[in-house]
Amino acid sequence: MSLIENLNWRYATKAYDPTKKVSEKNLYKILEAARLAPTSSGLQQYRVLVISNQELKERLKEGSFNPESMRDCSYVLVFAAWDNYTDERIDKIYNHTTRQRGLPDGQFKSYTDKIKAIFASQTIEENFDNAARQCYIGLAMALAQAAELKIDSTPAEGFDNAQVDKTLELKVKGLKSVVLMYVGYRAEHDWLAPMRKVRNPMDEFVTFIG
Amino acid sequence: MSLIENLNWRYATKAYDPTKKVSEKNLYKILEAARLAPTSSGLQQYRVLVISNQELKERLKEGSFNPESMRDCSYVLVFAAWDNYTDERIDKIYNHTTRQRGLPDGQFKSYTDKIKAIFASQTIEENFDNAARQCYIGLAMALAQAAELKIDSTPAEGFDNAQVDKTLELKVKGLKSVVLMYVGYRAEHDWLAPMRKVRNPMDEFVTFIG
Repeated sequence: MSLIENLNWRYATKAYDPTKKVSEKNLYKILEAARLAPTSSGLQQYRVLVISNQELKERLKEGSFNPESMRDCSYVLVFAAWDNYTDERIDKIYNHTTRQRGLPDGQFKSYTDKIKAIFASQTIEENFDNAARQCYIGLAMALAQAAELKIDSTPAEGFDNAQVDKTLELKVKGLKSVVLMYVGYRAEHDWLAPMRKVRNPMDEFVTFIG
Repeated sequence: MSLIENLNWRYATKAYDPTKKVSEKNLYKILEAARLAPTSSGLQQYRVLVISNQELKERLKEGSFNPESMRDCSYVLVFAAWDNYTDERIDKIYNHTTRQRGLPDGQFKSYTDKIKAIFASQTIEENFDNAARQCYIGLAMALAQAAELKIDSTPAEGFDNAQVDKTLELKVKGLKSVVLMYVGYRAEHDWLAPMRKVRNPMDEFVTFIG
C-alpha cells in the first residue's frame, strides 16, 4: 500500500478495543519510523516515552480530552522535547554524529557556532517551541507507520501537560511533554470509523504561485 | 518499499541538480500526502504555497541558510499557518466537514464551543504556535511521500520569515510562514549524500515506562 492509501485508511481513532494489543514487534517499527524522522539541524531534540501500564494510563488520563482512548489503547507514546537548547546538548549530538561518520570532532563547528548563537539570542520559551515543533515530524512518521501496519492511532494534544510532566518526572530529564499518540486497535462501536475523511479541497489547500 | 526503508533512503539534500525537474504528477502526490495529514481538532489550520518561478526563488532565498538549495530545487513548498484561531475559521471548516458527511450544521457544536473557549483564553502568539505545529505533520507526510517516489527533499526552517510573508503577501491571507520544503533531485556532488544517517540509538530515543 502506498502512503496516500495508508493516509486515506487511517483516522483519529476515538474508541479502542482494550482486548486487542499491538505486538511489541509492531510497536518497535512505529518507534523506528519516529526515530528516523528528520529534525531541525539534526539535533533530535525530543524523546519518546512509552506507557502500557494500566494504572499509569489511568493517572495520565485525568484532564484528557479522550480519557477512554488513553485507557483502552495498547500504548501511549509521549513525545517530549528538550526544555531548552544548550551548548552541551548541541555538542553531544554533533560529536555523536561526527564520530559515527568517522569525521574529526568539531567538523561542523562553524555550523554549530551559528545555531548556538541563534539559540542564545532567543528566550527559553522560543527555544522550547522550536524543539516542540520537531516532535510533530516524528509523530507524523509514527502515525504513517502505524497505518502501514493497519494499526490504529490517535494524535492527542488535549491533555494536562503539567500533570504528565510531573507524573513522568520529565523535568529532571530536561524534557517537557508536547503531544501524545495512542496506539491500538479500534473498537467496533467507534462512531468516527464509518465517517468520511474530510479535507479542504486541493485548490483551497494549495496555492501555485508559479 | 516500506516507510522505514524510504526514511533510511532520504536525507536533507544540500545540493540540487537544477537541470532535473520533478514532474507535476509527482508534485501533486507530495501535496496530496500533506493534504491528508491529520491536524489538531481537524482544523486544517495551514496552507501550502508552491513556488517554481526562478526569479521568485531568487528573491526568497535572501537570508536563507541554504540559498543554493532553494535556487536549484524544482519547487519550494511554503507551509504557512493561520495567524490566529477565530470562531469564523473554526465554524467554516466544521460546516464543511459536517456537510461533506451529510450531518446537520452544528453537529459538533459542543466540541467547537469547547475549543473556541480555549483559543479565546490564549494569546494570539499561543494560538499561532499551535497552528504552526500542525504544519510539521503535513511537512513530514510530504517528506515521506517524496521519499516513496525517490524524489529528494529538504525541510528548511532557516529563512527570513518576515521577508517570505511580505513577498508572498501572506498577511492578507491570514497566514504566516512556518517551514519550507525544497523538492527536487540531488546534485551528484552533494557532500551529504554519501554520509551515514546518524540517529540516537533506540535505547536513548525511547524510554519504556511500562
